Amino acid sequence: MGLVSLTVCGMPALRNEQSRRAILDAAMSMICELGYDKISIEAIARQAGVSKQTIYRWWPSKGAVILEAATESLGAVVAIPDTGDIVADIRTQLTAILDLITTTGFGPAYRSLIAAGQSDPDLLRALFDQIIEPNIQDFSARTALARQRGEMRGDADWQTLRDLLYGVVEYRLFHSMPLEPEYLDAVLEIVFHGVR
Amino acid sequence: MGLVSLTVCGMPALRNEQSRRAILDAAMSMICELGYDKISIEAIARQAGVSKQTIYRWWPSKGAVILEAATESLGAVVAIPDTGDIVADIRTQLTAILDLITTTGFGPAYRSLIAAGQSDPDLLRALFDQIIEPNIQDFSARTALARQRGEMRGDADWQTLRDLLYGVVEYRLFHSMPLEPEYLDAVLEIVFHGVR
Repeated sequence: MGLVSLTVCGMPALRNEQSRRAILDAAMSMICELGYDKISIEAIARQAGVSKQTIYRWWPSKGAVILEAATESLGAVVAIPDTGDIVADIRTQLTAILDLITTTGFGPAYRSLIAAGQSDPDLLRALFDQIIEPNIQDFSARTALARQRGEMRGDADWQTLRDLLYGVVEYRLFHSMPLEPEYLDAVLEIVFHGVR
Repeated sequence: MGLVSLTVCGMPALRNEQSRRAILDAAMSMICELGYDKISIEAIARQAGVSKQTIYRWWPSKGAVILEAATESLGAVVAIPDTGDIVADIRTQLTAILDLITTTGFGPAYRSLIAAGQSDPDLLRALFDQIIEPNIQDFSARTALARQRGEMRGDADWQTLRDLLYGVVEYRLFHSMPLEPEYLDAVLEIVFHGVR
């Protein structure tokens, strides 16, 4: 007898990776073309070549599908490298995030998710858990090393520093202001050296 | 002959200040109770005791009414004072903004407007013109004095500094993270003194 998908004790059925990939790719390409409001689970299913039921078996809502698609596309670029130079390493990561925002469906998807999350606390919480919290963990670990090694002050408030860095990127994204890599140098100059 | 309201050459009719105030107050109180999505022009009109047509004569959309209500409530607290201490003065203004966000309808209204603006470029542009642009002008003027007087570095990048300060407030608002006045001290410490 081969492997079977089972729904046991309320656990979701095992996902078929090929269908899952097709669904997330469809969601991501449709958000670029149509925008969040005009997408439906039905349309994602049609484009992915799966049934609506398949999507509802794995995700509770359209927002959840798009959040998973966005989280996966961010996954590849989100880690802060460690070359021993914290400013260069944060710049490398933020440059990759800006590139993702400005050249892929991640930008429109993220804007839509934050927008929908303002009236959907479950979605906002899921976004926090899947996107913000892993970033907090990664930033915490990398800045702990930086503080030990003297790449930055030992008593620096890394949590507020993190808010400032990712907050300014979101601010410019949500207000449709330009997001160019050179801008990061201006940001890093202020938070590392201060304007006093 | 007394004053009359005229619609001439496509100009909007003169507004009756009492009706205008009733409409903006109704919009602001309803956004607290119901949230943006559940408000309609019709419901605002009913609560304000005016006709739907009166609202449509003065505003093109629900978003425009709520934006004007939010802009007015921000107006009273938005100016940065000048005591000669730029850090204290920015703290005073940001404290007033946090208070407005956390204790009045401004917080929910602003979240809703930014959310709606992600799929409504005209609304996002109007919000930029009515809320962000005046803040840029004010911040520019106050930091120009600060740079001349040596309250901060003469070559400090005030535009990026402004993005960082208001960006971090929006970031914490949009992610439903706590916004306490003490947090501002952590922010000001970093942007004025740096973490290096």
